[in-house]
Amino acid sequence: MPQRFLDAAAAICGAAHVVPGAQVEPRYLEAARYGSGQAAALVRPATSGEAAALLALCAASDLILVPQGAHTGLVLAGTPSDAARQVLLSTERMRECFELDLLDRTLRVSAGFKLSEINERLAPHGLWFPIDLSADPSIGGMLAHNTGGTRMLRYGDVRANTLALQVALAEPAGQLLQLGRGLQKDNAGLALQHLMIGSSGSLALVCEATLKLHPLPRQQAAVLVAPASLEAVMPLYQRAMAAEFCGLISAFEGLSRPALQAALHVCGDPGRLFDGQLPEYALLIELSSELPAAALDLNALLQQWLESEFEAGNVVDAVLGADETIWALRHSVSEGLREQGKVIGFDISLPRRHFMRFRAEAAAWLAQAFPAARVADFGHLGDGGLHFNLVWPKSEAALPSDELERLRAGVYAIVAAFGGSFSAEHGVGPSLLQHYRERSDPAALRLAGAIQAVLNPQSSLGLTNFGPA
Amino acid sequence: MPQRFLDAAAAICGAAHVVPGAQVEPRYLEAARYGSGQAAALVRPATSGEAAALLALCAASDLILVPQGAHTGLVLAGTPSDAARQVLLSTERMRECFELDLLDRTLRVSAGFKLSEINERLAPHGLWFPIDLSADPSIGGMLAHNTGGTRMLRYGDVRANTLALQVALAEPAGQLLQLGRGLQKDNAGLALQHLMIGSSGSLALVCEATLKLHPLPRQQAAVLVAPASLEAVMPLYQRAMAAEFCGLISAFEGLSRPALQAALHVCGDPGRLFDGQLPEYALLIELSSELPAAALDLNALLQQWLESEFEAGNVVDAVLGADETIWALRHSVSEGLREQGKVIGFDISLPRRHFMRFRAEAAAWLAQAFPAARVADFGHLGDGGLHFNLVWPKSEAALPSDELERLRAGVYAIVAAFGGSFSAEHGVGPSLLQHYRERSDPAALRLAGAIQAVLNPQSSLGLTNFGPA
Repeated sequence: MPQRFLDAAAAICGAAHVVPGAQVEPRYLEAARYGSGQAAALVRPATSGEAAALLALCAASDLILVPQGAHTGLVLAGTPSDAARQVLLSTERMRECFELDLLDRTLRVSAGFKLSEINERLAPHGLWFPIDLSADPSIGGMLAHNTGGTRMLRYGDVRANTLALQVALAEPAGQLLQLGRGLQKDNAGLALQHLMIGSSGSLALVCEATLKLHPLPRQQAAVLVAPASLEAVMPLYQRAMAAEFCGLISAFEGLSRPALQAALHVCGDPGRLFDGQLPEYALLIELSSELPAAALDLNALLQQWLESEFEAGNVVDAVLGADETIWALRHSVSEGLREQGKVIGFDISLPRRHFMRFRAEAAAWLAQAFPAARVADFGHLGDGGLHFNLVWPKSEAALPSDELERLRAGVYAIVAAFGGSFSAEHGVGPSLLQHYRERSDPAALRLAGAIQAVLNPQSSLGLTNFGPA
Repeated sequence: MPQRFLDAAAAICGAAHVVPGAQVEPRYLEAARYGSGQAAALVRPATSGEAAALLALCAASDLILVPQGAHTGLVLAGTPSDAARQVLLSTERMRECFELDLLDRTLRVSAGFKLSEINERLAPHGLWFPIDLSADPSIGGMLAHNTGGTRMLRYGDVRANTLALQVALAEPAGQLLQLGRGLQKDNAGLALQHLMIGSSGSLALVCEATLKLHPLPRQQAAVLVAPASLEAVMPLYQRAMAAEFCGLISAFEGLSRPALQAALHVCGDPGRLFDGQLPEYALLIELSSELPAAALDLNALLQQWLESEFEAGNVVDAVLGADETIWALRHSVSEGLREQGKVIGFDISLPRRHFMRFRAEAAAWLAQAFPAARVADFGHLGDGGLHFNLVWPKSEAALPSDELERLRAGVYAIVAAFGGSFSAEHGVGPSLLQHYRERSDPAALRLAGAIQAVLNPQSSLGLTNFGPA
């Protein structure tokens, strides 16, 4: 790394925030799930202006700038891999802006704020940014991948809750540009901010976002349901979505028995969930409302519905009135799976009519082709999302990388055959690029590549090339 | 118009659906509000394939294809203006696809279906596409301008309810491309469908859309409120949005006294609304819920809130329990204004903290600069949208076009000074292009122009050039 670059970067964001590659701390280089990377240097700007200047400096130095938020992403879009040419820009110090407009219920916020912090600061105002995730990403990272989470069913994804962006362009390098005014209703030109959302930090560098906020619910009620059979699951879903409380459903999650077992291992199971009779597939359903329980009793609504489903023989057990426990279980699945072995994750989504058939076909193929892989899927039945995660047990010899690729390709082929998506909410990054190219229409790839060439012609920003190759 | 083109078009969509320019019926050429156009020919394809082939034919013939839906747009984006080079493509016969997925609650629909038809067909399934407008546009036109309407507050705009598009590209001309799989959660590439939404039919020709549907409410309750004063309006809004019923608010509209008077003239006023004491600004608030009234009485919730506001002196009168009448009034404003003279419309949005100050400043400037103009504004206070419409009375001499431009520029300057948008939900088209260029960041214009050049390099599709000139 030329000293000249380090000096110039230090002049922009301070010497304390420019770190040569060899001295970068592991947390910036170790990816959240798979592998680790390397960088020529780490830079940590504090402001949009500093970030933009660093982007210009990289371009002028023939270096590639790789933006990274809280480094919780699962597709390697923020993990640099080249010790000679890639400069890691961490947004963690980008916290200059936190402007709350209580009348518009909007928040203009710098990219470096974490989701948990944003919601802690909003809570006293009775507001929240209602994206619920097991991880705690920065807002910049959430925009890079348009995260959805467990409450998307009611509140929509990051895109649906983003009104404007301030970005630094790669071309002209370092130009700051405001896209959108932060108004709820604004169609005064092309929606360029929506092109940036979900572009993995490879079209422009997101510096600030204006978010749409929602009132905090005054009550929530969750239930963990044991359906009578696997066949009962989809009809249960359909009846719930047509029920009188359907407008109040804020989460509708599915948990396979192995996923539930893994979570129970993390949380402990003093209460012997479902008396130890874990169903093949459990459902977590949550209602929420801004009305207080005195005006509308959500627990009673759920109970009444459950009773009718019990009577009809569709439900055999349910845990009601233990919201915290249930959500802790849901959010412990990933940790529980990691304890059992190497997780091979698939963040997919499917048309609901194929949801259960996909599970069966993919499991059958795996049982034959990779019998050691344990399927432990869970996810967002309510929005068609499925974390079709596998565990490769610690007791087994590690899967060679070409075999792992064969496994992934096999599952993705089944996803595609059912009209599903190979990336529901984790976005696209280096770890998914090959499948992205194989599973996309060539005309769409050419178009995406041509648009990326307008915004990032030298590939000087980010690691994700949306074009044909 | 060369006979060769007409013959080739007839071979694609049938001779009965190719009309030479001079024989085109007025409804295709007379714009919904301002002026009228002319075309070299009208073509009316029945399928996506025919539409794509016609787009290719136009490009090969050095002609410009102008897509038009139900021709309800207000920015001239679908009104051709060149009898030599512009071919009008009406989507009205594009009705081949209407695929309802009841489990996913999605609808894949051809561009030519009208909003009212879609909702009539969905109602028996307990579903709707919840965009509420005074006009009845086609779905293609709604996508071209990302319409919002009166219930955006609860349901979002067209964008928030669109999952995928099938488009015909201008380059390569006539290539059909599916953008998105129609899944609720899908981030497997750049969101090119979101770039198309709101692009005025000038980036690609939308042939089909996959829409997200919502359950029909089981009850709605609306109230027309007479606030004690203009100053009481925003605090009322703020308290309603923080009230316990805030999650149920599906519309929050504002009506100035002149707008209300115009609507009363259309609807008749046998009940002597507010005993003839029309407030300076009235509010229409609607709650809706999927719960039946037996479980949650929306009228009672509204009544209780109104009583507390009466007691506090913030509200002086209210009309409750007459939903149809109230909504008929709201939807009659535009017609009422047209009866009074020439309407000069402004479809703007503002940060709410500036909403009332904008109204006052704009009215004051108009009173001085154009004293004959009558302000009769109304709109969507709930989402910051404002139809700041003026009536130029029939009794006055028509405003010369340069004076009209001076008027428009003056109002837009005040909008910009308050951080507002010059186009909230009507989009951008030829009638707004000059203001679009004046009010956009030059860097954003360059970027938009470069992206449009990728998609529509010969300007062979549509009338809206989003670039610098």
